[in-house]
Amino acid sequence: MAIERGQLLSVLGMASPVIQAPMAGFAFPDMVIAVCEAGGLGIVAAAPHSMEEIERDNGAIRSRTNRPFGINFFSHAAPVRDAVAERAWRQRLQPYFEELQLDAEDIALPTSPVEGFGEAQCSAVERIRPRVVSFHFGLPDADLLMRVKKAGALVMASATTVTEAVWLEAHGCDVVIAQGMEAGGHRGHFLAGSESRQRGTFTLVPQIVDAIRLPVVAAGGIGDIRGVRAALALGAEAVQVGTAFLCCTEASMRPGYLRALQQSTGEDTVMTSAFSGRPARVVANRFTRELGMHENEVANFPLAMNLIAPLVRDAAQSGSSDLAPVWAGQGIRPYGPITASQLVGRLTPVEWA
Amino acid sequence: MAIERGQLLSVLGMASPVIQAPMAGFAFPDMVIAVCEAGGLGIVAAAPHSMEEIERDNGAIRSRTNRPFGINFFSHAAPVRDAVAERAWRQRLQPYFEELQLDAEDIALPTSPVEGFGEAQCSAVERIRPRVVSFHFGLPDADLLMRVKKAGALVMASATTVTEAVWLEAHGCDVVIAQGMEAGGHRGHFLAGSESRQRGTFTLVPQIVDAIRLPVVAAGGIGDIRGVRAALALGAEAVQVGTAFLCCTEASMRPGYLRALQQSTGEDTVMTSAFSGRPARVVANRFTRELGMHENEVANFPLAMNLIAPLVRDAAQSGSSDLAPVWAGQGIRPYGPITASQLVGRLTPVEWA
Repeated sequence: MAIERGQLLSVLGMASPVIQAPMAGFAFPDMVIAVCEAGGLGIVAAAPHSMEEIERDNGAIRSRTNRPFGINFFSHAAPVRDAVAERAWRQRLQPYFEELQLDAEDIALPTSPVEGFGEAQCSAVERIRPRVVSFHFGLPDADLLMRVKKAGALVMASATTVTEAVWLEAHGCDVVIAQGMEAGGHRGHFLAGSESRQRGTFTLVPQIVDAIRLPVVAAGGIGDIRGVRAALALGAEAVQVGTAFLCCTEASMRPGYLRALQQSTGEDTVMTSAFSGRPARVVANRFTRELGMHENEVANFPLAMNLIAPLVRDAAQSGSSDLAPVWAGQGIRPYGPITASQLVGRLTPVEWA
Repeated sequence: MAIERGQLLSVLGMASPVIQAPMAGFAFPDMVIAVCEAGGLGIVAAAPHSMEEIERDNGAIRSRTNRPFGINFFSHAAPVRDAVAERAWRQRLQPYFEELQLDAEDIALPTSPVEGFGEAQCSAVERIRPRVVSFHFGLPDADLLMRVKKAGALVMASATTVTEAVWLEAHGCDVVIAQGMEAGGHRGHFLAGSESRQRGTFTLVPQIVDAIRLPVVAAGGIGDIRGVRAALALGAEAVQVGTAFLCCTEASMRPGYLRALQQSTGEDTVMTSAFSGRPARVVANRFTRELGMHENEVANFPLAMNLIAPLVRDAAQSGSSDLAPVWAGQGIRPYGPITASQLVGRLTPVEWA
């Protein structure tokens, strides 16, 4: 069901313009419920989840809130294996495995750690019937998308350029998330040529608003009420916020990650493909300094994530964040301990109350 | 004379938050006068000018307005000659000279096309006593800066990172211009490490506002009233606008340049050092596609500008903009023919009138 521009919040019954960004591995039902109950829109990051986990999360959320929520999936194509790149990248990482005395021999590279949206995910959506389904890396195949919409879901997807926003509108998307290059985690680009364009939130939002007729959500660098007000001034009708929610008490964070976030200034994030095979923004650390951007040498997304899995597990145990990804956007600032509900309150213009 | 945050517009008697960015070669007294008379702040781009030209422009402006205005200078260090790079770059450009049948033998590379702020410029400031002096590429030496301030000028300078903003505050700057990577023309970075940080306007402005106590001006990607409102929401007390003024009737534009601007979508700008030796944002054209970014191969700034001077002269005659720089920011949009005064009006919040 398509919605008119300006109607997004009323259609979803939102009392706040805040959408909590799906953050795989960090945002679970507790976070989603807190955001929804505070008047925003919580989104489950289902990309790395099994169908059982998706059903279980849905049950947990519905037992504790009647508010609409969203489920996010990735819509990347299945990875193309590249034996040469995989072997070379594994060798490149070997010194780190040895330094940390990790056994990396048994990394099961063929098993994709993140599935694209397919039959299984679509069937789950048809059973669960979430109010919102959002996609990263473009849209799934037309027949799957049609089924999602028939199941009653509003479809949101990320655009990193005006060209991508126009493409999304032409292919059945209901709401476009304008993702500026300030955003933490994976850039959602999906059309050739978009990756290099580096559009910032400041110009991307109004130019997308002018180019399409759909409601536009601003994402990338929004971490306080000034950012929310600026995004609304630029023509967005809602904001998608990620990094700020990472510091909330409901987030599932390993200690080293939280410390790295709290010490970050916003000045020290970088874009790298070294952690997953696709460009993503992280806090600079020893890994990014030593391995850099590596567009062409990494195993293809998302297979590269398997290769760093031992490093992530080690970081979780050691509390270090030198060699594991600390996903974060440029809008990061020193957040105190705060609940997701409090954060939604801080990000909601007072005149909306 | 230092000013308190929040006082910039009242101190300068501005009825609009709009500062016209200095654009060397495009903004002359007619533009500066129109902006000042409309309640904004016009700035003369004096970097490439002789002292005679500076005095003449000052006379022209003062004869037609009593409003305060600014003069902009570059504060780059004198270029280091690099014979190897210069020869290689000249050879790289040679096919273009031949294609256009240009005589490039007599390019006088040693003569810098743009002087840094030195004794001559400082003496001119002391004679002219402009209300505002702005600098790009950092600040001049401390003794020169002191003389500028003693002459009664408010000192503004660009920061592309929070670190640079803090540095500017510590070194006597009065107003910091937060220049996001969306901005057209030359990035103003001057500290090691800043160039690669690619801070967008959206997060740079509030983070600089939080890090220093000086008034902050937002620059980069601001081309309509939405951008002005967003910049103010982010904590800026004024905005510096460049590209939008290029399309005004007072701008001195070669026809091909204006056409390239009007055909640009905002999606097709790139950052390149190929035109001057320093990174600058331009509309992508044949030159940038064929020569790319070239951080390390270009003759040092600003000497590289001498090498492309024959291409710029040819573009002015032919009306083509394939091989000459079309400086522009990511905020570019289709502007109709408009006067600078009308543009200031459009960029001023109605509730300010």
